[in-house]
Amino acid sequence: MKLVCTQSDLSTNLSLTSRAVPSRPTHPVLANVLLQADAETNRVSLTAFDLNLGIRTSFSAEVEEGGAIAIPAKLLNDITSRLSEGEITLEDESASVSSPGSEGLIVTLTPKSGRYQVRAMGAEDFPELPVIENVETRNFASLRATALIEGLRGSLFATSTDETKQVLTGVHLTVKQDTLEFAATDGHRLAVVETTNESPEKDVETENFASLEVTVPARALRELERMLAHSASQDEPVALYFDQGQVVFELADQRLTSRTLEGQYPAYRQLIPREFERELTLDRRQLLNALERIAVLADQKNNIVKVSLDNVAQEVTLSCEAQDVGSATESMSAQISGENIDIAFNIKYLMEGLKALPASEIFMQLNQALTPVIFTPLSGLKMTYLAMPVQLRS
Amino acid sequence: MKLVCTQSDLSTNLSLTSRAVPSRPTHPVLANVLLQADAETNRVSLTAFDLNLGIRTSFSAEVEEGGAIAIPAKLLNDITSRLSEGEITLEDESASVSSPGSEGLIVTLTPKSGRYQVRAMGAEDFPELPVIENVETRNFASLRATALIEGLRGSLFATSTDETKQVLTGVHLTVKQDTLEFAATDGHRLAVVETTNESPEKDVETENFASLEVTVPARALRELERMLAHSASQDEPVALYFDQGQVVFELADQRLTSRTLEGQYPAYRQLIPREFERELTLDRRQLLNALERIAVLADQKNNIVKVSLDNVAQEVTLSCEAQDVGSATESMSAQISGENIDIAFNIKYLMEGLKALPASEIFMQLNQALTPVIFTPLSGLKMTYLAMPVQLRS
Repeated sequence: MKLVCTQSDLSTNLSLTSRAVPSRPTHPVLANVLLQADAETNRVSLTAFDLNLGIRTSFSAEVEEGGAIAIPAKLLNDITSRLSEGEITLEDESASVSSPGSEGLIVTLTPKSGRYQVRAMGAEDFPELPVIENVETRNFASLRATALIEGLRGSLFATSTDETKQVLTGVHLTVKQDTLEFAATDGHRLAVVETTNESPEKDVETENFASLEVTVPARALRELERMLAHSASQDEPVALYFDQGQVVFELADQRLTSRTLEGQYPAYRQLIPREFERELTLDRRQLLNALERIAVLADQKNNIVKVSLDNVAQEVTLSCEAQDVGSATESMSAQISGENIDIAFNIKYLMEGLKALPASEIFMQLNQALTPVIFTPLSGLKMTYLAMPVQLRS
Repeated sequence: MKLVCTQSDLSTNLSLTSRAVPSRPTHPVLANVLLQADAETNRVSLTAFDLNLGIRTSFSAEVEEGGAIAIPAKLLNDITSRLSEGEITLEDESASVSSPGSEGLIVTLTPKSGRYQVRAMGAEDFPELPVIENVETRNFASLRATALIEGLRGSLFATSTDETKQVLTGVHLTVKQDTLEFAATDGHRLAVVETTNESPEKDVETENFASLEVTVPARALRELERMLAHSASQDEPVALYFDQGQVVFELADQRLTSRTLEGQYPAYRQLIPREFERELTLDRRQLLNALERIAVLADQKNNIVKVSLDNVAQEVTLSCEAQDVGSATESMSAQISGENIDIAFNIKYLMEGLKALPASEIFMQLNQALTPVIFTPLSGLKMTYLAMPVQLRS
């Protein structure tokens, strides 16, 4: 194998794929990135795979001789990212050629300024990335990248970080003909984003379009979010395939595969109340800033903040009592309808939801002190954030 | 005590003094910042002290009632830094007033948006900051802030981080009539910076000026560096006092005290060779970049880089052999006089020294493969960096 590419192409693609390299690989070959060079198409692809998450990217290069090799990902990435702009020649050879007696492969990197040799492994040791066979409309969707970004931003934060919670560690995606819905919950709060999905590709048969549902691990979607954020072409569609426990997202030159989370996802729509006894309109930034200050004291104890509605003063008061440490109170004006009430929350859940709501003003709807509370943006994205209140001890 | 100040004054000064608050205080009161308010001068001072390092800053405020109180530093800093711009009222009272039955002090912070109460301690529990009595020319110097910044930047990195190494964990300062010298060594390398010290205050008697020497812990000097970097008035002189194991640096509204390091500092001038068999002129940035790339491989083994001089090609070659991992070679042109030689270094020491040398071109001077090597900037600051080579195993 021999190829010539630019430092920036190699470095950018290495840092992208390296995200799927496990920090503690269960098998030595997984610490590598698989480099495949095709002399016919003059394309080079890089693949990393931790057996759950896989990332493959590709770029153009002058491929003098095709081939494939597995190269230590961190080492190659660390060297390449420090090289100055310009062309790099990459070549493999048997180690025995350069140092007789030792076995294995060596890859040589020749930038303008010097020469780097790194021990490598055979491509045949690298596990195959799962592929989706039999693509049908049933298991294929073409999504707008911007819709995907919005949906991930509004849902990922609400997934559970507790690995024993199975499906709750992922985001549940529902692709319908015109909409794309994201849902995440950890049992204490729920975030649902519904985006429009006017697929730019109209050649897909839409008549028999059944809704497509899949739960994807948060880790894989965080990498997808990063990929989309760095992608030059956010207007391009992203293809989504899935099959037998695997999901694949395909961008122009990048592909991300992940196992899916098996099991029944909670019927979350049923949790969202439809009628409310109390409604408030609040300035999101002002509420969030006040909560961040109060959190300094709430952090010292049980993270509980009390929210008190005063419909006469049209004012909301936030307060926290941290015994033996101190106390905090903040008030702000709000448009309030419904009777006065005191209701308590885990302050972290409130803050996280408010950070994700993409609007300057928000709508808060509730019934009783211990029934679910709903936060929605006053305009813009269709997002629903549900937070369960906690018992107030007085 | 009662005072009104701005959020920015309180927050800025709290974050400065908080640097001297120990993360694991040996006594509860040390986790506090001492706030002293003077109704006559309308000044507020904040003090933090970990029994080694002390920082005191002061600012203007409307002091309605003077007094002093010790307030939990982290809590007060975290709340204040999150408040929006504007006036804050700060007031203390006995806890028994607001909540009968409990003892102690409470400080109330009232910004525009709310009200924060934090449990505090009596000022009498807070230890006194050391003061320097009997100030004479013998133990006083007035230093230019810019000279101090240059000197710290060029020496601090070379101090030892090994606490058992006593005086080597500090920077040795020598204040002479016109010069200010900084030296730091960890036993493997040595950095010496000599700056001019034309004191802006000419009223100090200079006739009998004896040189003044003191070794100050790196930790205190890092805080001094930060203080100077954030100081609005870098043209103002910094006063240096010392006495009986204590040193005090005094800026306009800030004061830093530290214990000094006792013991004989090494006679480092003797270590610097005066004559050399080999001399090179090198581009600093180019050399540093090449070393940073080679360090990726050197990191995998023993951190050793080989430097080979070729006086025919007028070229320096850097190389590293990391067995079972790989190898690296970089070459660059240099002006070389003297015979060819191979010499090896700990690559980290080379990189750290090169980062600190403030010049685009540097001068490297050496004799044999195992005698001290000197690096100096070709122009600008008077700095000397000495690195001890290591044995090359071939």
